[in-house]
Amino acid sequence: MFFTLKDLPVSESDRTNHKLARLDKNENPFALPAGLMEEIREGLSSIEMNRYPDPSYKRLRSRLAEIYNVPEKLLITGNGGDEILWLLYAAFANNNKPILTLDPTFSEYYHLASVFGAKQELVGLVKNPDSFSLDQDLFLKKLTENNYSLVLIDTPNNPTGMPVDPSFLEKVLEVASCPVVIDEAYAEFAGKSFLDRLSMKELPENLIVLKTLSKAWSLAGLRLGFAICAKPISIKLSQIKSPFNVNVFTEMAVCKVLEYEEWMKNRVESIKYTRDSFIKKTNQLKGWKAYPSKANFVLVEHSFSEKKILEEMSRNNIKVKKVKLGGYPDKNFIRVSIGTEREMDKLLKVFTANDRII
Amino acid sequence: MFFTLKDLPVSESDRTNHKLARLDKNENPFALPAGLMEEIREGLSSIEMNRYPDPSYKRLRSRLAEIYNVPEKLLITGNGGDEILWLLYAAFANNNKPILTLDPTFSEYYHLASVFGAKQELVGLVKNPDSFSLDQDLFLKKLTENNYSLVLIDTPNNPTGMPVDPSFLEKVLEVASCPVVIDEAYAEFAGKSFLDRLSMKELPENLIVLKTLSKAWSLAGLRLGFAICAKPISIKLSQIKSPFNVNVFTEMAVCKVLEYEEWMKNRVESIKYTRDSFIKKTNQLKGWKAYPSKANFVLVEHSFSEKKILEEMSRNNIKVKKVKLGGYPDKNFIRVSIGTEREMDKLLKVFTANDRII
Repeated sequence: MFFTLKDLPVSESDRTNHKLARLDKNENPFALPAGLMEEIREGLSSIEMNRYPDPSYKRLRSRLAEIYNVPEKLLITGNGGDEILWLLYAAFANNNKPILTLDPTFSEYYHLASVFGAKQELVGLVKNPDSFSLDQDLFLKKLTENNYSLVLIDTPNNPTGMPVDPSFLEKVLEVASCPVVIDEAYAEFAGKSFLDRLSMKELPENLIVLKTLSKAWSLAGLRLGFAICAKPISIKLSQIKSPFNVNVFTEMAVCKVLEYEEWMKNRVESIKYTRDSFIKKTNQLKGWKAYPSKANFVLVEHSFSEKKILEEMSRNNIKVKKVKLGGYPDKNFIRVSIGTEREMDKLLKVFTANDRII
Repeated sequence: MFFTLKDLPVSESDRTNHKLARLDKNENPFALPAGLMEEIREGLSSIEMNRYPDPSYKRLRSRLAEIYNVPEKLLITGNGGDEILWLLYAAFANNNKPILTLDPTFSEYYHLASVFGAKQELVGLVKNPDSFSLDQDLFLKKLTENNYSLVLIDTPNNPTGMPVDPSFLEKVLEVASCPVVIDEAYAEFAGKSFLDRLSMKELPENLIVLKTLSKAWSLAGLRLGFAICAKPISIKLSQIKSPFNVNVFTEMAVCKVLEYEEWMKNRVESIKYTRDSFIKKTNQLKGWKAYPSKANFVLVEHSFSEKKILEEMSRNNIKVKKVKLGGYPDKNFIRVSIGTEREMDKLLKVFTANDRII
């Protein structure tokens, strides 16, 4: 069923060796299709670069609302998910009450806590033999016993790839007396969204679901993030945001890209297949363990010299992200974004070489 | 030397009547030239939308540094000048010490003070018979006697068009014990920059000069602002900003637009000519007073019913910005962005009609 690297003809696997495999930023390896690029090129003549964007972003927001089947007025767009996080911290974080989030999680949450002078409390994920898990009772206990300014949970979690149980998220929303951010940057690769469970007319009043077009939609470079928020939160964020935060090109291009939902879904399926295959192959090697993932990246633990492995990656023109987990300082992890089949094979070759040597 | 509206053949002035004259947002009326647009169109094939931008923005920053003759490492780019202001408030504003700025000034300063829970102290500009002026002694006295977290001065000032004396700005930098933002969004229309006075190797340690490509460079829709800051401030802002704040299209397009400096300067000269002509023509009419301006907009005071005037503008497909000055609540002002000659003539026709009626 699965090929090992040894099955590949040398010439074929060698062909990609000179090209840098960028597996460090959880980008989508697939560029936009040529026909879509042509539409965007033609769309250039419809935008006025010397004029400010429409501050309501009416067209963009209504298309996003249609695609994601959410009410348009609860949807707010930003210059990447990053900017929405800035708005959320500006609106809610303060130096009296800490934020509550996971360890590990998206590093920007920690960064913004520091920018906004907010303390943070972290609930560490538990490393089991073959997976990561979250101590839900501990998380809920903290929420019951303390006051927080903001709760942030990413699902699937970055960098572990672990999905967070939606019924637990429902409890969090019930118990928390502050806004709760459910960060679904990678949700398309998990195949489901927390929004699916909700009756949109009754969005919990403390809910923010954060989304981005950087991952599944292949648009990391264009910077388009958005959030679906309960009404009072949506109003608050709209009030504080700068009026022209998304540029006219991104607005035009995204509206065209959104017409290619089927293309996006196909690419997502392809990445999921490559991911699952990569995980299986990795787990057949000695000294390497790939954790299960519902995202477009995989956390890999290894028992070799970290320095040596990273040097070897670099020598082979492969970029991956080194990860340290607070709770497990002695373990070596790398986070591997799922690239093309060939890129993953190139990476597996490095894994395999070490499997042989040691 | 100057034509009045009556000199224009009716058919010619009528021809533009159906097109909306957008004179409310201080945009540049000139679109990018066709050849440049073609270069940008071709440039699309060189960017990778599925990849994050280079977080150092090396190419963009070095081109901006060349054009503006400033050290590259002191230059930080943002999603419009607005985002740089967000970064400055996040870095320096706090609820212990107020910010110090002018009244009136760019509304975003007030907005961000509220977002970041910072108090503000305002020094009101003085309306003289034929100009606005700043009480420099009062401003410096405040700086000497109090502690501020941030000082913001825009020159030329929005919405009055008043330039701020550079030797006064030097004193502000000497006296202030906090960062001082000199906002030069409109400086190209004044023909000079505070940076011209400085030896770049010895930038005052509390200086931030804020610039934008939205005005002189005709790029309001692309959102590119930047700041030249003293080294410690530049380091601080780089630390707090999100890594991918400018998108790959804007980065590519701006690098191409910057090659058209001569085109930009010609358009700026043209706008200045139109502005000065508009001011003279307005001041020949009864009940209308255009204040001197060094920007691409003009503050106009009138003695008619505000409602009636704005209705008439709307009926004639003209947008201008209504302005209220805190110090002069009984006076009616509009801020008029300088558009094309024809747009200004269309506006002057409304002025003239009222000149006749009353």
